[in-house]
Amino acid sequence: MSPLSRLNLDPASDTPLYRQLADEISELIERGEVASGERLPPTRELAGVLGLNRTTVSAAYAQLEEAGLIEGHVGRGSFVAQRGAKAHVAADWESLLAPMEEGFAPSGRKVEINFANSRPAGASFPVAQFRRLAKQAIEGADAAEILQLGSPHGYGPLRRYLLERAAAEGVARAGDDLIVTNGCQQALDLLARLFAPAGNAIVVEDPVYHGLLRVLARAQVNLLPAQVTEDGIDVDALEELVRTQRPRALMVTPSFQNPTGATISLENRERIVELAQRFGLALVENDIYSDLRYRGKTLPTLKELDATGNTILLRSYSKVAFPGLRVGWAIAPRAVIARLADAKQLSDLHSDQLSQAVLLRFAESGELEKHIDRTRREGGERLEAVLTACRKHLPAGARFTRPEGGMSLWIELPEPLTAEGLLSKVEERGVSFVPGRYFSVRRAHARGLRISFGGLTQEEIRRGIRIIGDAAAEQLAATAAQVSFEPAAALV
Amino acid sequence: MSPLSRLNLDPASDTPLYRQLADEISELIERGEVASGERLPPTRELAGVLGLNRTTVSAAYAQLEEAGLIEGHVGRGSFVAQRGAKAHVAADWESLLAPMEEGFAPSGRKVEINFANSRPAGASFPVAQFRRLAKQAIEGADAAEILQLGSPHGYGPLRRYLLERAAAEGVARAGDDLIVTNGCQQALDLLARLFAPAGNAIVVEDPVYHGLLRVLARAQVNLLPAQVTEDGIDVDALEELVRTQRPRALMVTPSFQNPTGATISLENRERIVELAQRFGLALVENDIYSDLRYRGKTLPTLKELDATGNTILLRSYSKVAFPGLRVGWAIAPRAVIARLADAKQLSDLHSDQLSQAVLLRFAESGELEKHIDRTRREGGERLEAVLTACRKHLPAGARFTRPEGGMSLWIELPEPLTAEGLLSKVEERGVSFVPGRYFSVRRAHARGLRISFGGLTQEEIRRGIRIIGDAAAEQLAATAAQVSFEPAAALV
Repeated sequence: MSPLSRLNLDPASDTPLYRQLADEISELIERGEVASGERLPPTRELAGVLGLNRTTVSAAYAQLEEAGLIEGHVGRGSFVAQRGAKAHVAADWESLLAPMEEGFAPSGRKVEINFANSRPAGASFPVAQFRRLAKQAIEGADAAEILQLGSPHGYGPLRRYLLERAAAEGVARAGDDLIVTNGCQQALDLLARLFAPAGNAIVVEDPVYHGLLRVLARAQVNLLPAQVTEDGIDVDALEELVRTQRPRALMVTPSFQNPTGATISLENRERIVELAQRFGLALVENDIYSDLRYRGKTLPTLKELDATGNTILLRSYSKVAFPGLRVGWAIAPRAVIARLADAKQLSDLHSDQLSQAVLLRFAESGELEKHIDRTRREGGERLEAVLTACRKHLPAGARFTRPEGGMSLWIELPEPLTAEGLLSKVEERGVSFVPGRYFSVRRAHARGLRISFGGLTQEEIRRGIRIIGDAAAEQLAATAAQVSFEPAAALV
Repeated sequence: MSPLSRLNLDPASDTPLYRQLADEISELIERGEVASGERLPPTRELAGVLGLNRTTVSAAYAQLEEAGLIEGHVGRGSFVAQRGAKAHVAADWESLLAPMEEGFAPSGRKVEINFANSRPAGASFPVAQFRRLAKQAIEGADAAEILQLGSPHGYGPLRRYLLERAAAEGVARAGDDLIVTNGCQQALDLLARLFAPAGNAIVVEDPVYHGLLRVLARAQVNLLPAQVTEDGIDVDALEELVRTQRPRALMVTPSFQNPTGATISLENRERIVELAQRFGLALVENDIYSDLRYRGKTLPTLKELDATGNTILLRSYSKVAFPGLRVGWAIAPRAVIARLADAKQLSDLHSDQLSQAVLLRFAESGELEKHIDRTRREGGERLEAVLTACRKHLPAGARFTRPEGGMSLWIELPEPLTAEGLLSKVEERGVSFVPGRYFSVRRAHARGLRISFGGLTQEEIRRGIRIIGDAAAEQLAATAAQVSFEPAAALV
């Protein structure tokens, strides 16, 4: 019996079965357990013995043949080849393609408590309701239209629903229109490309969402950072920047900003809108978190406060419903939406229509609102847990923000600690977070770090913050710095 | 009774109901039928009378308030305002945003026979099978995972399925990987951006898919056009370009190219691969039509012929299944897929997972293959109809390609006709197509035009080509050119 029939493959592995099989056979050949010139079992036979699809075995054989390890002869089967590489003149992809930019890369260690991912808790997804409403959408009379090529603006019924709601809220105005995007990320990408060519700068918050920084860098936008304080973007600094540098736009997240969780006060929102109106500045308002308010009073969006049409509002179902369904949208004056639709058509024609139809049912049925209510309740408990744990476990000298909603808060470690140094310590204990420099325009914020708590249980949050606090205290002790055991002051 | 209660709105209109309502009320105010200071009916009451949602009425009132036509007073209701515009300092979007590039814009006339859209026939969609398999996907054990944030590489089970099939076909090799994109269009966009920065040129076919031209222009790629002949890209011209200009890549559609329908012969495919290997040229192979072969023999992809890993293969479910579900993919050496995944993450994080799960079921169940078989049968009949109609109805001097599959063919009009001149004539008769200049790198091909026949019935095709042929003959007669009534020669 061939040694191939004794192979053990792991169907649960990330490596496809055919690759596992090819790798195993390749090792057998390497070790001489299957000799040069020996015939391999026919694909059908080996598939039967190993309990695999025949396609899987064929794919493995094809890979081995490609690698020059076996040779196929029509009608006779596959044979182990004499070793000898073919002459290859491969494309030099390193020089042909744009380099990858440095982004945050997890260590590869097993993470038990992941503060690095800003995403909702999958365990709370209302799967039964989703199933029921998705089936309704699939049974809907317009199924054939959903399957056919659509409009760059989005699936008509969802677009009308969202625009009407926004108009009723006072968020959409008479001259406004709406486009559906693949989540907020795509809206940021499309806007970065629309704003980029003119050469003027764009103001961003600092620290700011790393995905925005990278998108703007790719589009070669000139970035002007404005510091985020406990009350959101520093409006005095912003005004100074606008006055002296005449940027074309400000991109801002007024509510529960990622990564700080900071929220801009009503007074400062009014000042920002007034500034935009005075200087003809475009405002890009990232509003994906404002539904996730756990405490305090709801504030109006910049879009609502802005009667002049300077604001492009970005929203999404990803943070409040299902990130796996990529549906976000932008509301802005018609001229802006027309440009976005043109750019969207070049990028991917239009957004997937099935998920748009499903999410419309989910919203119209009231299930979305119920789910958001639940998320808010659970989010409030998570927020309480993370704030309590920070107070209790972070060493003296550490400071942290006190968000009233959203998914993340920001910790500043005391001197001489660095977030990267601390990360390597806590990764050993199964905890991860993203160090501050990835959120920094100038790669500063070495002592800052983002804690994303939106997807974790209270118990995980408590345990994770304790591990971070303990590791920080140990590092402080090890650096022989003066450690006091006073509770940490909140960076409110 | 208020004159508002007599308003008639059209629920079937493209204009949302709230806008129709606001427009109507605005007219009543304009005409003085509702006077300054008069109180409007409460939203609930008007909604009841007109049979609308209360939200719709609120949205209309909000729009009127925004326009300064009415004023709301908390607890007292809404009143018609004194006329007087607010001072607005709006952003100057024309100068803030990149200009829109010229693309083909339909005339706005009603189109009965649309040769301009390259999309499959919606009437042939297997809606019942889609519904059944979509429900299975929704009921699947991994529903919660589908709803959660996914990987930039795509939904794991689909990715494994596609990669394994491609390996079994000999299309994917040992060092290859796969990424799911939002149709082929997104793959083109991501690649354009990855290839753009290095400054070297990219060779494209001429004429070529207008969506590719625009994507490459947006990425500021330097384009080198190589003419498409009856046998696909002119490989002698290509070789000359590669030798003298040292481009970094060739983007090519070997089978049933859009817009010409031309297919590259096996011999020329081998020459192209050999050229790529000799010069380290990257090949981007757009392979979205090859399953739609109605005649002749299947040819291997460049990817299959290329053992050196110079080829990036692009495929999609859009043309062979449902364009409304945005699922395509790229297969290439791992280094390329890693860059694509990085670029994809910046563009929109990842593709929608629900449609990926549904299409996986559709493919695994065998329904996709059955649907493709049907599409091929119907496509063969359409192709026969369009070729016959071209022979019969096009005037002498016109030439046309003879594709063996795909969705489009190319007509060259005789001198002195132009495609744009002809289009304005046939649009009057309810027929549309896209003139050749939109497919031309240098805006040439004034006499060329694309006929997309993939979504039309045989009867529509016959009638449409007859209208085009008649209009061309009339224009020829009118220009006093010598018109012979010989049948047109095929541009084979």
